[in-house]
Amino acid sequence: MEGAAVDHLAHERSRAQFDVEAMKIAWAGSKHAVDVADRMARLVASDPVFKKDNRMMLGRKELFKNTLRKAAHAWKRINELRLTEEEASMLRIFVDEPGYVDLHWGMFVPAIKGQGTDEQQKKWLPLAYRMQIIGCYAQTELGHGSNVQGLETTATFDPKTDEFIIHSPTLTSSKWWPGGLGKISTHAVVYARLITDGKDHGINGFIVQLRSLDDHSPLPGIVVGDIGTKFGNGAYNTMDNGVLRFDHVRIPRNQMLMRVSQVTREGKFVQSDVPRQLLYGTMVYVRQTIVSDASKALSRAVCIAVRYSAVRRQFGSQDGSPETQVIDYKTQQSRLFPLLASAYAFRFVGEWLKWLYRDVTERLQANDFSTLPEAHACTAGLKSLTTSVTADGIEECRKLCGGHGYLCSSGLPELFAVYVPACTYEGDNVVLLLQVARFLMKTVSQLGSGKKPVGTTAYMGSVQHLLQSKCDVLTAEDWLKPSVILEAFEARAIRLAVNCAKNISKFPSQEEGFSELSADLVEVAIAHCQLIIVSKFIDKVKEDIQGHGVKELLQILCNVYALSLVHKHLGDFVSTGYITPRQGALANEQLRFLYAQVRPNAVALVDAFNYTDHYLGSILGRFDGNVYPKLYEEAWKDPLNDTVVPDGYHEYIRPLLKQKFTVSRM
Amino acid sequence: MEGAAVDHLAHERSRAQFDVEAMKIAWAGSKHAVDVADRMARLVASDPVFKKDNRMMLGRKELFKNTLRKAAHAWKRINELRLTEEEASMLRIFVDEPGYVDLHWGMFVPAIKGQGTDEQQKKWLPLAYRMQIIGCYAQTELGHGSNVQGLETTATFDPKTDEFIIHSPTLTSSKWWPGGLGKISTHAVVYARLITDGKDHGINGFIVQLRSLDDHSPLPGIVVGDIGTKFGNGAYNTMDNGVLRFDHVRIPRNQMLMRVSQVTREGKFVQSDVPRQLLYGTMVYVRQTIVSDASKALSRAVCIAVRYSAVRRQFGSQDGSPETQVIDYKTQQSRLFPLLASAYAFRFVGEWLKWLYRDVTERLQANDFSTLPEAHACTAGLKSLTTSVTADGIEECRKLCGGHGYLCSSGLPELFAVYVPACTYEGDNVVLLLQVARFLMKTVSQLGSGKKPVGTTAYMGSVQHLLQSKCDVLTAEDWLKPSVILEAFEARAIRLAVNCAKNISKFPSQEEGFSELSADLVEVAIAHCQLIIVSKFIDKVKEDIQGHGVKELLQILCNVYALSLVHKHLGDFVSTGYITPRQGALANEQLRFLYAQVRPNAVALVDAFNYTDHYLGSILGRFDGNVYPKLYEEAWKDPLNDTVVPDGYHEYIRPLLKQKFTVSRM
Ligand SMILES: Cc1cc2nc3c(=O)[nH]c(=O)nc-3n(C[C@H](O)[C@H](O)[C@H](O)COP(=O)(O)OP(=O)(O)OC[C@H]3O[C@@H](n4cnc5c(N)ncnc54)[C@H](O)[C@@H]3O)c2cc1C
Ligand SMILES: Cc1cc2nc3c(=O)[nH]c(=O)nc-3n(C[C@H](O)[C@H](O)[C@H](O)COP(=O)(O)OP(=O)(O)OC[C@H]3O[C@@H](n4cnc5c(N)ncnc54)[C@H](O)[C@@H]3O)c2cc1C
Ligand SMILES: [Ca+2]
Repeated sequence: MEGAAVDHLAHERSRAQFDVEAMKIAWAGSKHAVDVADRMARLVASDPVFKKDNRMMLGRKELFKNTLRKAAHAWKRINELRLTEEEASMLRIFVDEPGYVDLHWGMFVPAIKGQGTDEQQKKWLPLAYRMQIIGCYAQTELGHGSNVQGLETTATFDPKTDEFIIHSPTLTSSKWWPGGLGKISTHAVVYARLITDGKDHGINGFIVQLRSLDDHSPLPGIVVGDIGTKFGNGAYNTMDNGVLRFDHVRIPRNQMLMRVSQVTREGKFVQSDVPRQLLYGTMVYVRQTIVSDASKALSRAVCIAVRYSAVRRQFGSQDGSPETQVIDYKTQQSRLFPLLASAYAFRFVGEWLKWLYRDVTERLQANDFSTLPEAHACTAGLKSLTTSVTADGIEECRKLCGGHGYLCSSGLPELFAVYVPACTYEGDNVVLLLQVARFLMKTVSQLGSGKKPVGTTAYMGSVQHLLQSKCDVLTAEDWLKPSVILEAFEARAIRLAVNCAKNISKFPSQEEGFSELSADLVEVAIAHCQLIIVSKFIDKVKEDIQGHGVKELLQILCNVYALSLVHKHLGDFVSTGYITPRQGALANEQLRFLYAQVRPNAVALVDAFNYTDHYLGSILGRFDGNVYPKLYEEAWKDPLNDTVVPDGYHEYIRPLLKQKFTVSRM
Repeated sequence: MEGAAVDHLAHERSRAQFDVEAMKIAWAGSKHAVDVADRMARLVASDPVFKKDNRMMLGRKELFKNTLRKAAHAWKRINELRLTEEEASMLRIFVDEPGYVDLHWGMFVPAIKGQGTDEQQKKWLPLAYRMQIIGCYAQTELGHGSNVQGLETTATFDPKTDEFIIHSPTLTSSKWWPGGLGKISTHAVVYARLITDGKDHGINGFIVQLRSLDDHSPLPGIVVGDIGTKFGNGAYNTMDNGVLRFDHVRIPRNQMLMRVSQVTREGKFVQSDVPRQLLYGTMVYVRQTIVSDASKALSRAVCIAVRYSAVRRQFGSQDGSPETQVIDYKTQQSRLFPLLASAYAFRFVGEWLKWLYRDVTERLQANDFSTLPEAHACTAGLKSLTTSVTADGIEECRKLCGGHGYLCSSGLPELFAVYVPACTYEGDNVVLLLQVARFLMKTVSQLGSGKKPVGTTAYMGSVQHLLQSKCDVLTAEDWLKPSVILEAFEARAIRLAVNCAKNISKFPSQEEGFSELSADLVEVAIAHCQLIIVSKFIDKVKEDIQGHGVKELLQILCNVYALSLVHKHLGDFVSTGYITPRQGALANEQLRFLYAQVRPNAVALVDAFNYTDHYLGSILGRFDGNVYPKLYEEAWKDPLNDTVVPDGYHEYIRPLLKQKFTVSRM
């Protein structure tokens, strides 16, 4: 991407056996998507306001102010250039700093769209679209996150004034975590326990104004602030995650989001005929974006680690020849290439989830709710799996860079710190897997009842076959057949599920069995989700894919993804009796051959992500591989190097050296 | 430890089935060790200079200066109170901030002790002991870390002046990473390529003065500075990891560390009759301290996560009763309790390593080198395994705390950031495991040759038995027998090793086989190291241990440690044919029963670590469990909360809200 004078990776690039430009299209989804990304990435990279290499040196306040500046500038550019929604969202991605705008566009607006009546949408959305109000999503409290039904904030209807009284009755009912809340949002969708006439109707959403639109001061009865420093140096500290308390704050009745349930003028609580499941639509949407973010974050880390592993040489020099590139070590490959394959796998399953969301939406509009539970379980599971693998994968990439990966200038520490909360927000990953497991146990219990499993659980329809069949792999090459891989993953998933269901049935009650065996159930859910990703990757490779060598390389990556999982979870595959230890060993052998096929293409495969140096933000991941001079240059910019003799020398070092203390017993 | 007014965990504490005070002794090693730790921890916690809760808010310079202040104050206290070496080192541990003193005492002094002649020790050690000089350990360069033999810095002997000329011939030869180097050290042990009379004699150590003892300015020919910000906010940024370049810097000949090799006045290079292996002694020492640090770091994280999991309640409330403590969820237990058990396991293997170090030292003094390769492999492997598990374990503990774990006030982000480099320094963990694997392959190849495997490889002597025997577990309880567990780990380790050796022998050369199969070899090494830890834990439980219930609880933890590994590595155990899938399932079943036994003791088991709130540095891990009010209080201290309306509002938010921009196409 960068037109560099030196290219230390030119030799690597010349070895690639496929058309990188065509792979860019396969990765991005279309030529159009590549072009938009290209234009937006350059726009951001060339604009001094969007500079981000100074982030490490800023205190919290300057850091935060700088993010406000970037957000305002981005908005200005979006308007000046009359960007489309697609372009604008790309631009925000490349600005690459969490900020209040993420919640405004990503949660506040969708919440109103999903839960507001037509009238409410007509009133609030234009304000939000023009950013005449800025909103956040205030659900989590100090005491409750995963258990939304346990939220304590109350919204009590007062029929006298036709208002709700929003109140925080306890310390633990303080809203806690909402992004954009702490310092910026003028409005929030607040989730609170609806009370009418002394009766508790459970959790509902309310649009609440928090701050004056004139001078930004909190409205009467509202205490609001930032919850403090978070993981990492820059990272998520550009975001004002906030705390919020209400002291009997009044809002008009029409600010309850009333699409699925309403409170009448008289204070009667009524459910509309719009089914509650509609709300799941938004969840499917939000989680699909999280899967797509996972592939982005993982691919960035992999891009850095692959390029640096090709630059870095250590050991193995014979008679003065250059040392071995660390990417040539099989241990390095066995850690790095499965992550490279995962980045591609997550990208494609993310694209498929977009299709799923469209499909669900269309069905909902036609009042068809039949696929919703399956779609919901599927997105919950994929959110959990892809974010966990990505978080661990980023840290693994950092370790793969040796000591230099520990420097912020490698980009990896901050990428990790900014990414990891994805394992927690929008559903704690373990809690989500338990939901998936519950759905799977239900599906298993209904097998043979005539109710056919749909979508990603369709394979469960072949339960009899999958319980009886055996893997017929005889040679390492047999593991390259998509049908062999697919059946192995299906058999493992269903066998684990059926075993678990059997074990649960031995307990006095289903509930007790479920909770006692929940650690096993998590493994059942993971097996199911891995199957989904493998099968979508296989489907992708079956598509008509343009460009010399592109399909071949994707096939290789698909096999790497699948076989590295077979190796990692060998216990599952062997102990459920579908494959033999010998077949497991053959899978592992084939994996080595696949790594050798990835190797000459590794750098080109990460080039295909098409990331600018600005977006990567990593000296180790520089496109031109010119790592050492730039690391050296960067070091001197640290504030500690402002003076040769450090501040504190005269007070704390000199007296010590000059031995002003008595000698100890040591 | 804290005499708190409230104790939200009192009920938990009352449920414990063992004597916590006795467990403290088992953990610390002796009553004396508990007392020293107690006194030093209180000393630090009560001294305002050692306050550390403001770390997140400091910029790099203030942070660093503050660390200098603490180090000087600690030194002052050590002298004033005439502390013993043991007390002083405890005090430094509880100050709990990486700083130049760590390298001075932990690397510079040991290097001179280990590699200096008696004369050199007599000259330099007293200066170092009194801190009239401050030293660091300058080995790693920009271009070389793992491959020490590839270092490029040169030390060329000049017979005319009887001096060495220290020089950095290339950019990549710049020293890079040494702690304490950047801003503080007056001296360094510098590793450089010794050249006499045009001949390269490989890497040797040299004592080099870097800075003036009068005004701290770098001596002529020396460029030195800090390498920049590292992972995390406070974390390792209190340390001045440095960059250093030499331009023909001259030092007297007697500043080469000459214990094992010397350069004569004439420039002749001679090896002394002291064997080179002596140097391994220092490595064994340093790595043993790293294992001991691992148990410390992991136990801190586990302490925080256990206490918070007992405080945190989520879901499961029936009719207004309190919700379920999250520590009661089996998924939480299956993630948390193996880490609790690992903390204990690492503690005991660390104590055993101290014995090993003493044993090696005695043998070396008696010119017995027979156990050295085994001791060396063992410490390398244990360093690798314990640091990897600890790094991942800290992050897992953070996730176990849900969203609140992501706040710096939880203590976990900084604990992670400051800990992870342990996976890289003192030997990259993968490189170390490959060394262990090489040693194991050699041991396997010598089986039956009459050379008996010693120490931790002694089990390999029973290779025939272990290859043929089968696990005889019939019930879940059978897995509680130490002999059953031990043989399972021995059989798995040796079977993996023998398989690998066989596979290697199929390659044209041993070297090629080793490198092609290196990913498998890493797994062989891990299996061997896990066996060591399991067997030392079993030995520990066999000891005479005082106190009601203490032995019983340690037995439970030992079983949790072992069986959770059987479950995690089921593929190894089953596919090598030692255990059946059914036996694997029984191990997993037993594991659940063990978790239920740990549960009522969990809080008391972490109390036994005896950590002060100051040392833990975590609101979630507070001894009194008073989490919510303190989280709330802490939030308001963030600099962002200095003003209600944030800096930047007028420039970047108001204009946006007031719509000064044209409307976009969106
Ligand atoms: C960076 C960040 C941004 C956020 N942004 C927002 C935002 O904009 N708006 C908003 O409203 N919220 C936000 N949140 C909050 C987030 O949604 C919650 O943190 C998340 O839902 C997890 O809930 P929790 O923190 O209560 O975890 P907990 O539920 O307390 O989890 C603690 C532990 O208990 C376990 N556990 C809990 N329940 C069960 C169960 N039933 N079975 C087994 N195990 C269980 C979990 O697995 C976990 O290990 C944000 C959080 C973060 C970290
Ligand atoms: C916080 C911190 C403090 C430090 N303090 C000091 C100090 O005080 N003094 C000092 O001298 N140094 C210090 N170091 C440097 C440290 O010792 C090195 O970083 C470490 O030795 C690893 O070497 P490297 O960085 O060159 O990694 P590399 O060797 O470049 O490793 C990069 C990757 O290559 C792989 N690799 C390398 N060789 C092989 C092989 N033969 N086979 C398979 N894979 C291989 C590794 O596994 C890794 O994945 C410090 C480092 C850190 C992070
Ligand atoms: Ca900072």
